[in-house]
Amino acid sequence: MSQSARDDAFYMARAVQLAANGRYTTDPNPRVGCVLVRDGVIIGEGWHQQAGFAHAEVAALNSVANAQGATAYVTLEPCSHFGRTPPCCDALIKAGVRRVVAAMADPNPLVAGQGLARLKAAGCEVQVGVLAADAQALNRGFIKRMTGQGPWVRSKLAMSLDGRTACASGESQWITAAPARADVHRLRAESSAILTGVNTVLADDPSLNARVDFPVLQPIRVVLDTHLQTPPTARMAALSGRSLILTCSDDAAKQQRLQAAGFEVYRLPDKNARLDLSEVMRFLADQQINEVLVEAGAVLNGALLAENLVDEIVVYMAPSILGDQGRGLFHLPQALAMADKKELQLLDVRQVGGDLRLTLRPHDKI
Amino acid sequence: MSQSARDDAFYMARAVQLAANGRYTTDPNPRVGCVLVRDGVIIGEGWHQQAGFAHAEVAALNSVANAQGATAYVTLEPCSHFGRTPPCCDALIKAGVRRVVAAMADPNPLVAGQGLARLKAAGCEVQVGVLAADAQALNRGFIKRMTGQGPWVRSKLAMSLDGRTACASGESQWITAAPARADVHRLRAESSAILTGVNTVLADDPSLNARVDFPVLQPIRVVLDTHLQTPPTARMAALSGRSLILTCSDDAAKQQRLQAAGFEVYRLPDKNARLDLSEVMRFLADQQINEVLVEAGAVLNGALLAENLVDEIVVYMAPSILGDQGRGLFHLPQALAMADKKELQLLDVRQVGGDLRLTLRPHDKI
Repeated sequence: MSQSARDDAFYMARAVQLAANGRYTTDPNPRVGCVLVRDGVIIGEGWHQQAGFAHAEVAALNSVANAQGATAYVTLEPCSHFGRTPPCCDALIKAGVRRVVAAMADPNPLVAGQGLARLKAAGCEVQVGVLAADAQALNRGFIKRMTGQGPWVRSKLAMSLDGRTACASGESQWITAAPARADVHRLRAESSAILTGVNTVLADDPSLNARVDFPVLQPIRVVLDTHLQTPPTARMAALSGRSLILTCSDDAAKQQRLQAAGFEVYRLPDKNARLDLSEVMRFLADQQINEVLVEAGAVLNGALLAENLVDEIVVYMAPSILGDQGRGLFHLPQALAMADKKELQLLDVRQVGGDLRLTLRPHDKI
Repeated sequence: MSQSARDDAFYMARAVQLAANGRYTTDPNPRVGCVLVRDGVIIGEGWHQQAGFAHAEVAALNSVANAQGATAYVTLEPCSHFGRTPPCCDALIKAGVRRVVAAMADPNPLVAGQGLARLKAAGCEVQVGVLAADAQALNRGFIKRMTGQGPWVRSKLAMSLDGRTACASGESQWITAAPARADVHRLRAESSAILTGVNTVLADDPSLNARVDFPVLQPIRVVLDTHLQTPPTARMAALSGRSLILTCSDDAAKQQRLQAAGFEVYRLPDKNARLDLSEVMRFLADQQINEVLVEAGAVLNGALLAENLVDEIVVYMAPSILGDQGRGLFHLPQALAMADKKELQLLDVRQVGGDLRLTLRPHDKI
């Protein structure tokens, strides 16, 4: 690796770090960071904080009096279109930036490369692909949605050592200890939406909000409720932010009662007398939801897994035993033979308080 | 810590290391190591290799021409009785050893301190308790048995991420990959006996021997078989070493057929129409079994756990999903409420091949 390639990686690493500052607030936009460098010195930095606010490039340009002749390191190809803000390409060109290094092209295949082409046409030196994997990891949800594959879906489960999420009675509070539950709130804060099933609403009446001590754009709450069994008194309806119910029911009276309580209700196609999960994902993508956190029981988790809709599984494992009458993690429609077991790759294991957190990804999602 | 205390810990650490050489071969004896030091130099080393062979102290003395004036570091109080070999105390005294440092006293409360007293009476300086925890960890089975608490029991289980040891059909080969299965053979080699239930024999016809590439005293195989359902053709009967069947059946014809096939058959007391597990443990201790490895199904594992007979649990977790129709780890007689869950402490987590190995201990066994 040449010295200049090492320098590029160094400055891009800083830009990735800046981008991560937006982890909890940029939805539905991507997390983007930008560093301006001149004569080997970082002269400006910026990141995208929130939809409607300055993009990372403009934030970085705003941080310096003069960017003439600088190199801009951006974690995502600068935009060339008018959205809620004017195109970043034009801002970079106008500021006299001499070279633009992007970690990755725009994930939308319809516009990918247009920003870079516009910069080139204006005389900028352009390079793409520095620390691409790091930049992609920050925006896996945005990228997946932009490439027409729906939102990125993570299932979160809490279990005992012996793979039980609840007692035989359904009692599930609490298997894990406070530090693990606090970690779940961080996962919620990172997510665009929390997806659950009506049975979880009926059993636990969860709030499904992110209770964290840093600024966060609250995730959208989504309840899959084929027959509109959600009670209008459900706790989440009264919380700030959006609560969605997706249903196959045409019962207008029920719909109205739920809407009056604060829910948005959407009628979606069914499949085998239940919500069609592929349609659910398509709907969520249309709602500009990048990352979905599933917090549900064995039936919904099993159905999502069986339909290959899960991108990552996070399991909090408590060092305790509930016995084999307790409830399982994944209810699969049919019993599997050993050869059919669903293979995962273990990405990360760490201790959270006295519990263990395992992060896994299906082999075909890597 | 004084310099002399540091020196003592240093030499004792070496003695513990030597003792561990006997990990796979000393049954029913303890693992013991000995270091002889004079003028700050290690002049002799030894460890106990096998019952009937020299004890560690004698092995160390045999490694030097002259131990006059030396200090002996031993991981266990030197014996003062005639067993298969003469008392080590006498050998140390005769060799002119000036000082004896023992990691721990003899665990048998009836003889503890007698060896040290005899050494003192002969004019030796005596100290006890250096690296006691390390020495105890090496001989937890021997210590537990010698203190009348029965053998030390470790349950080994292999499961999928979602806590399933087998498919709904009973198919269980293989959940984990080759490196984890090789690690199990190391656990077997370390154990005095492998305990299983007749249902596992009927389903898998296991060999339950340690297939390792180092010298090993093969563990005793023990089948709990209340009604003598074990087939005389069971694979383990033909293997070298002892295969025991513990039963509540008085069917003399069946007993004879099994004996003819190579099994030893023992009639034990029952409790609620099944083998009394406390009596089983008492019997195993009488057979001089220090460490038991349980490789069984959910029923036996659950019963041992419910009766508080498990000292350690080792779980090999494969990153795969079998679904909630698969078989569980522990069948407990009654469904637990959350407040009754069995709490464990996580002692160790490590990756073995692509699988994870978790080591846990019940809170009341720590």
